[in-house]
Amino acid sequence: MKIALAQQNYHIGHFEDNTRKIIGAIQYAKSRGADLVVFSELSICGYPPRDFLEFNDFIQECYKAIDIIKEHTEDIGVIVGCPQRNPDKEGKDLFNAAWFLYEKQVLGVAHKTLLPTYDVFDEYRYFEPSFNWQVISFKGKKIALTICEDIWNLGDNPLYRICPMDKLMGQQPDLMINISASPFDYDHDVDRLEVIRANVLKYKLPMFYCNAIGSQTEVVFDGGSLVMDAQGHVVKEMKYFEEDFTIVNTDDVEVQKSGPRSPRSNQKLQAVELDKEMRVSKISDPDKIIEYLTAEKNIGEIYQALLLGIRDYFRKMGFSKAILGSSGGIDSAVTLALACEALGKDNVRAILMPSHYSTSHSVTDAEQLSRNLGNPYDIIPIKDIYDSFLSTLKPVFKDLPFSLAEENIQSRTRGNLLMAIANKFGYILLNTSNKSELSTGYGTLYGDMAGGLSVLGDVYKMQVYALAEYINRNGEIIPENIIQKPPSAELRPDQKDSDSLPEYPVLDKVLYQYIERRQGPKEIISMGIDEALVKRILKLVNTSEYKRNQFCPIIRVSCKAFGIGRRVPIVARYLS
Amino acid sequence: MKIALAQQNYHIGHFEDNTRKIIGAIQYAKSRGADLVVFSELSICGYPPRDFLEFNDFIQECYKAIDIIKEHTEDIGVIVGCPQRNPDKEGKDLFNAAWFLYEKQVLGVAHKTLLPTYDVFDEYRYFEPSFNWQVISFKGKKIALTICEDIWNLGDNPLYRICPMDKLMGQQPDLMINISASPFDYDHDVDRLEVIRANVLKYKLPMFYCNAIGSQTEVVFDGGSLVMDAQGHVVKEMKYFEEDFTIVNTDDVEVQKSGPRSPRSNQKLQAVELDKEMRVSKISDPDKIIEYLTAEKNIGEIYQALLLGIRDYFRKMGFSKAILGSSGGIDSAVTLALACEALGKDNVRAILMPSHYSTSHSVTDAEQLSRNLGNPYDIIPIKDIYDSFLSTLKPVFKDLPFSLAEENIQSRTRGNLLMAIANKFGYILLNTSNKSELSTGYGTLYGDMAGGLSVLGDVYKMQVYALAEYINRNGEIIPENIIQKPPSAELRPDQKDSDSLPEYPVLDKVLYQYIERRQGPKEIISMGIDEALVKRILKLVNTSEYKRNQFCPIIRVSCKAFGIGRRVPIVARYLS
Repeated sequence: MKIALAQQNYHIGHFEDNTRKIIGAIQYAKSRGADLVVFSELSICGYPPRDFLEFNDFIQECYKAIDIIKEHTEDIGVIVGCPQRNPDKEGKDLFNAAWFLYEKQVLGVAHKTLLPTYDVFDEYRYFEPSFNWQVISFKGKKIALTICEDIWNLGDNPLYRICPMDKLMGQQPDLMINISASPFDYDHDVDRLEVIRANVLKYKLPMFYCNAIGSQTEVVFDGGSLVMDAQGHVVKEMKYFEEDFTIVNTDDVEVQKSGPRSPRSNQKLQAVELDKEMRVSKISDPDKIIEYLTAEKNIGEIYQALLLGIRDYFRKMGFSKAILGSSGGIDSAVTLALACEALGKDNVRAILMPSHYSTSHSVTDAEQLSRNLGNPYDIIPIKDIYDSFLSTLKPVFKDLPFSLAEENIQSRTRGNLLMAIANKFGYILLNTSNKSELSTGYGTLYGDMAGGLSVLGDVYKMQVYALAEYINRNGEIIPENIIQKPPSAELRPDQKDSDSLPEYPVLDKVLYQYIERRQGPKEIISMGIDEALVKRILKLVNTSEYKRNQFCPIIRVSCKAFGIGRRVPIVARYLS
Repeated sequence: MKIALAQQNYHIGHFEDNTRKIIGAIQYAKSRGADLVVFSELSICGYPPRDFLEFNDFIQECYKAIDIIKEHTEDIGVIVGCPQRNPDKEGKDLFNAAWFLYEKQVLGVAHKTLLPTYDVFDEYRYFEPSFNWQVISFKGKKIALTICEDIWNLGDNPLYRICPMDKLMGQQPDLMINISASPFDYDHDVDRLEVIRANVLKYKLPMFYCNAIGSQTEVVFDGGSLVMDAQGHVVKEMKYFEEDFTIVNTDDVEVQKSGPRSPRSNQKLQAVELDKEMRVSKISDPDKIIEYLTAEKNIGEIYQALLLGIRDYFRKMGFSKAILGSSGGIDSAVTLALACEALGKDNVRAILMPSHYSTSHSVTDAEQLSRNLGNPYDIIPIKDIYDSFLSTLKPVFKDLPFSLAEENIQSRTRGNLLMAIANKFGYILLNTSNKSELSTGYGTLYGDMAGGLSVLGDVYKMQVYALAEYINRNGEIIPENIIQKPPSAELRPDQKDSDSLPEYPVLDKVLYQYIERRQGPKEIISMGIDEALVKRILKLVNTSEYKRNQFCPIIRVSCKAFGIGRRVPIVARYLS
């Protein structure tokens, strides 16, 4: 039996587009002689549809799409992801389902059992877990069909009390098919390959694994669908960060013992294994965390994810042009370079907005950067507006000394200018804040924290430097002076980030333990980091929750990004 | 047996404060001869602790507090809410638990079975559902101890496939105790009394129900703890929107047949019954929705909830003073009046910021309002700053016609001025946007959408008018002219809201169906509302998701507020 995997990029709620894509792949699979074509989780509506699932109208649209697609299943089996109504009186109203369509009929429907409800996932908000497991027979093969998380309950500390593949094994399936929407983070490809391998080795069955690709607001799906034989060999690995299509014959999976693997997969698997060792050793050694965070494998993947994240945000929002503030600092430089790569240099407009306190190199460095990239830029000094704020506020501020208020006026004037130009010409403002700043609240609400999409909000400062080096890997794009100079907000004379924040290598190390690894103060101090410093950093994080709450979506590249995946009370008094 | 209910206001993560409060109530209960004192759900750490639960350190702090409180349980039983670690290898790491402490020991622990995972609730994100149910014997009584949602699985369309009280009934309990953190919305007090009554009537047992009180960022807990006998009579009803303490003897609950009830409860129950009838008839009749939304019961409760929401946000954030923009319009007038009532008139500073396009009555009406309220105010014209933006942008904007960009510059200049004064003097900026504007995206990001807390973001425009009338119930506080004039943003000559938006009575009716009731376009059109108008409104809602995503916390008063309880994709194409 020839099984096709269609790794596609869906637009949430855009039924017309998604249906057209799916039918296109069905027809192509037919033309290539496939017996069955497999699509990713909730492919009909796009993943994650979130509270749209609470609208009966939305579910009706899903069902209509199923009806349309069903008409194209003569002579080919089709597995698509689509919510299904729960006919029972009790329990949530929907199942997260994989529909097996064939000969214009529904041959079977598998319901997801394990509903991820952590980090960015909210599935138990919408779905009832499956309590009934049946293999599906098709052309003489018994297929164990599961959905994403269903295969993730192996290991030392399972999140669930049930394992759906164990339930299916009693019916002696011949192969496993899993349809997923498994998101990218720079650790997750490792985990994913390990989990698929653990499944094939445990159940001694081959796995056809179809993942989603494409960025959905903040969550990036990276593809990498694959076919693995029962011995844990990768028979076929599909592209990362791109749509892809493949057909694999089940005969080739079954006879495969130690035969030839795809060279690309070997490479990936080797990288993954190396990376896994490195990860374990480095994360447990606090002195090696920065080395791990900035490792070339991770930075290269983050780079790809950010490009896809930018591109899909603009395309799916119906925009083509970006604007951003170019300060001559490293964060805006890296954001600008990424935006030019993602959208095309002519579609990215940089605005240089020097103030009283800007150093001369700020403008010259930013100009050099745009000359290197070839994107349009303007210089708009903020002095007159700033002065006019000060004179307007004089009756209120009187002779009070210069303070944070005056710093923020400058930053918000820039935010206002950028938004004005964006409104006038139809740009989206790209935000340039990094994760270290966002963590500590080192930014101005409505000022440098403004924007429609945050490119670097899940990238620590030390990783921003590594990205700059990566961008320059084939020649200087980001001027060396931008990389070398000490970071500064330039909102008062001779200001440096280090006046307000610990040095970034120490800061990022502590932040990673607290945010990604959820270590508390005692654990972090026990790693040999100064107690007062740790407490100061955690307090900065916890007292700036109110700022992050108003921040734009962040392209997620780590296992714990700010935004929908991290839900912390604003009004609280804990470590603060 | 004398059972005390302690209805208290906790500060999330503030273990020292919460523990002190709990011990205080234990000592008071002892002094009043109580055998048992009951506290609300997760009282130890405050509800909802959200992702703090993922920190081992946070759970250790919870356990430490239990140890401290345990020392005060000589001669008195204590039921407190506190997470408990799950000793099993499988399943989530924690239970949401009710700890029964007595004689410095843990007499028993009940785990929550039904984990609300909808709207503002995320409990399955953190907790494993109970799968083991035991009554707790204390002083000759068998107590069926449950937590909040555990008693909510009655009715036509249960969310869960299990009913914990059914499981406990086999052990013949003598009474039910439920500890809750059940939030306010203007429908929910009705539902809550109905559910408690349905339980006592089904199980023929009295119920001691202890709810939380206090506002936690956006979610307001309104108290109203109560004791109901097995015939459905309210024996004791505690205060709404205030801390309270009561003791009820189980003898009085058991002998109660049709004896005297507390007069206050009778009143509340009658109101609730009337309201329920009204709700059903009005919601199903589209012409009566506005009448229902602005009914005096609902508006009076919303008023109380907003006061508590403002007061607790400031107190728990450690602030005492508010600032806001006072435009002479109805939204800022109602916000200002509420803030003065909640924080004291001397703690609320109004800033009047007329522009080129402000009408003369804008300033005079806003001045009259502040004279009526007695709060300080300043007049800061924005003309100079606006002109300086225009001249700075001239090289970019050239001779392009006046557009949304220029409107937004004015709004953002105001936002910048307000934030500058807030930063200089340590105020929190109160946002004045209403739910109708937020729904349709009729507001400027970083301009009138700026602020630390939204007071009216869950209050439709028609309800804002009703609140104004309510505020004026004992004499004019909000000048009649502010209530009467047509709403306008005053950002270009002779602008009216009705230039851009449908009339508010129609708009609010459609929004309520779509947002609160999750009706789709077909259902709303079938209520007799113009198809083009419905589609236009739903499109406005769905294409402005990106704006609301950056909005501050909104005090929640309805069953579906924007914010953490409504999770809609930003990048999507559905009804848009």
